[in-house]
Amino acid sequence: MTDAAAVLTALGARGWTVAVAESLTGGLVVSALVSVPGASAHVRGGVVAYATDVKGSLLGVDAGLLAARGAVDPEVARQMAEGVRTLLGADVGIATTGVAGPDAQDGQPVGTVHIAVVTPEATAVSSPLLRGDREEIRQATLARALADCLGQL
Amino acid sequence: MTDAAAVLTALGARGWTVAVAESLTGGLVVSALVSVPGASAHVRGGVVAYATDVKGSLLGVDAGLLAARGAVDPEVARQMAEGVRTLLGADVGIATTGVAGPDAQDGQPVGTVHIAVVTPEATAVSSPLLRGDREEIRQATLARALADCLGQL
Repeated sequence: MTDAAAVLTALGARGWTVAVAESLTGGLVVSALVSVPGASAHVRGGVVAYATDVKGSLLGVDAGLLAARGAVDPEVARQMAEGVRTLLGADVGIATTGVAGPDAQDGQPVGTVHIAVVTPEATAVSSPLLRGDREEIRQATLARALADCLGQL
Repeated sequence: MTDAAAVLTALGARGWTVAVAESLTGGLVVSALVSVPGASAHVRGGVVAYATDVKGSLLGVDAGLLAARGAVDPEVARQMAEGVRTLLGADVGIATTGVAGPDAQDGQPVGTVHIAVVTPEATAVSSPLLRGDREEIRQATLARALADCLGQL
């Protein structure tokens, strides 16, 4: 079973739905979940908030936080996960933000990544420093996000 | 140059930004655009409106239309593209809706797909009938969406 299929199976066992807010992964996480046949029973959808202001306007991330710390921040990830959960009416929210490269962003080095998972029972934020090129960092973030979600189900 | 990179280059020549609303592709289109280095200059983000009600609540697709025709409809695709363009403040909106399978949906056979592109100058909706399994139909829809967008730039 793929990680995405395992997440869907675990969501099914809980009777929970999921929504995803993504920055550097740009849709990879929600796409992996949607790729599983039968996904519609548990996947509400997602928001790709690639432009920083969309994190505030659509997901409700605090504008002062974004101004003070930039978009690559663990609390921003947590607020993105909370925001997409509320916006799409899902039980579980997953969020990714980070620097895929090739350039550093907001003073953060390439490979800095924050992943948040919010469920009705818990909030978890992980902050790995990943290595590789742009595509490798995005794929590694996808894998970590699915694993982090599975760990909370 | 990949199709996604070609779209980004053409957007740059126009000075336009893009946002994507996706159903069956579930984030594949916006993810392909974000995969191009430098995407942040032209990609605002996207909405994966996988659940039918999210197409109405978040993208502003007419609820009566969704009730009457279901989510797999060319006018739904057009309204999704208009909606995401407005919601994310982008010049160009791309939308996908359709039936990836394995089961038919809303009375539409597997492979029925509608793709809309809305720019400041034009609206275009294409409705291919695609063949293949779930993943092949999703990938073919991605390719068609990028080609359709390029054709309007």
